Amino acid sequence: MKIDLQKLYRCLDYTFNDSGLLRRALTHRSKSAENYERLEFLGDSILEFTISAELYDRHPDLSEGKLTRLRSSLVKKETLAEIARQIGLGDYLQLGSGELKSGGFDRESILADALEAVFGAVYLDDGIDSAQRVILYLYRDILQGVTPKSLEKDPKTQLQEYLQKRSQLLPVYQMHEVEGAQHKQLFVVECIVPGLGMPVRGKGSSRRKAEQQAASKVLELLNAR
Amino acid sequence: MKIDLQKLYRCLDYTFNDSGLLRRALTHRSKSAENYERLEFLGDSILEFTISAELYDRHPDLSEGKLTRLRSSLVKKETLAEIARQIGLGDYLQLGSGELKSGGFDRESILADALEAVFGAVYLDDGIDSAQRVILYLYRDILQGVTPKSLEKDPKTQLQEYLQKRSQLLPVYQMHEVEGAQHKQLFVVECIVPGLGMPVRGKGSSRRKAEQQAASKVLELLNAR
Repeated sequence: MKIDLQKLYRCLDYTFNDSGLLRRALTHRSKSAENYERLEFLGDSILEFTISAELYDRHPDLSEGKLTRLRSSLVKKETLAEIARQIGLGDYLQLGSGELKSGGFDRESILADALEAVFGAVYLDDGIDSAQRVILYLYRDILQGVTPKSLEKDPKTQLQEYLQKRSQLLPVYQMHEVEGAQHKQLFVVECIVPGLGMPVRGKGSSRRKAEQQAASKVLELLNAR
Repeated sequence: MKIDLQKLYRCLDYTFNDSGLLRRALTHRSKSAENYERLEFLGDSILEFTISAELYDRHPDLSEGKLTRLRSSLVKKETLAEIARQIGLGDYLQLGSGELKSGGFDRESILADALEAVFGAVYLDDGIDSAQRVILYLYRDILQGVTPKSLEKDPKTQLQEYLQKRSQLLPVYQMHEVEGAQHKQLFVVECIVPGLGMPVRGKGSSRRKAEQQAASKVLELLNAR
């Protein structure tokens, strides 16, 4: 099958000197012995390095532990598959007939592996600088959105985990009242944690926000003990 | 404490532009908030990339799975600590008093982490090419010794694992006879695997070699079933 790689070059913001390398990066083992697996091995390590160096630069105050968590969220299969889908990588995949029938071109693991292989292919084609440029180009939006803050769990989740860890009963959230006019409503929710005594109230412009505020207050009380 | 870094520069075959980076790479968190942890995060990914690219080049016929196993054996803590000891890295470590007393300068995990941090420091000091040069320089002997062959388990180990996996009784090795003159002895060993019926014989110039040959034959029989 003849595939037109020009569009993919534009999506990668990179034109291959040796298009054979890119073709190999797009070939699943179900199609040919000349497939992407070794390139994926290489590309995976280039991705880790590139993202590590970028996070190190961007977040001079973050601890190693937080950097590691940020990196994991960026190099994981789901994130890679998301990027692969954005650039339509599935359209270029060369799969064996079995994989084709079972929808392999949209399977997360295949998309993620092939994208890593593409990074490895760019590296072999033109060196580490080009590989890093392609990776940072594809990750530009995601890198923007991922901040240490985005790793933090919301108060309700934190409270639930706090109580589960101590084998305590889970909190109950009850609507206490809704104040204000139709379009400027203020929700007041009570969070009841058995063993804490008094219910704790949270307010917010939505029920969810009110619950989060209540959970946050309960966490403060528990942590202050 | 003033430490002389010149000797370490020679061991690394690299002289730092900014010796402060190297000092940070050698400082444990028990000593200072300005410690090696973030550099280790960076260095770890640089090591992984460097070894991956080197193995990819050196072993054009190896599968991704075997490359991954080779890489693991090279970047694991034990290997890093071995290199760190060879270059006397422990002498340069800056540890807090508690770690000092408990012998932290010779602890495998601290040596391994600090060495990774040194790789990160070289990268920040002079870029990826220098970091790769230092890594490949320190790994030169180990890379030479690690071959796909060195990953293979010996037949006795393989046989033991085969039987354990199937919850079967382990093999018993018995000396059957020793042939030949004193310095040209040939050992004949029987391997008895309950359930296989007949004992299987192996020969070799040592007891160990005879046992390995017998185990190898038993594996063949079991795999042929």
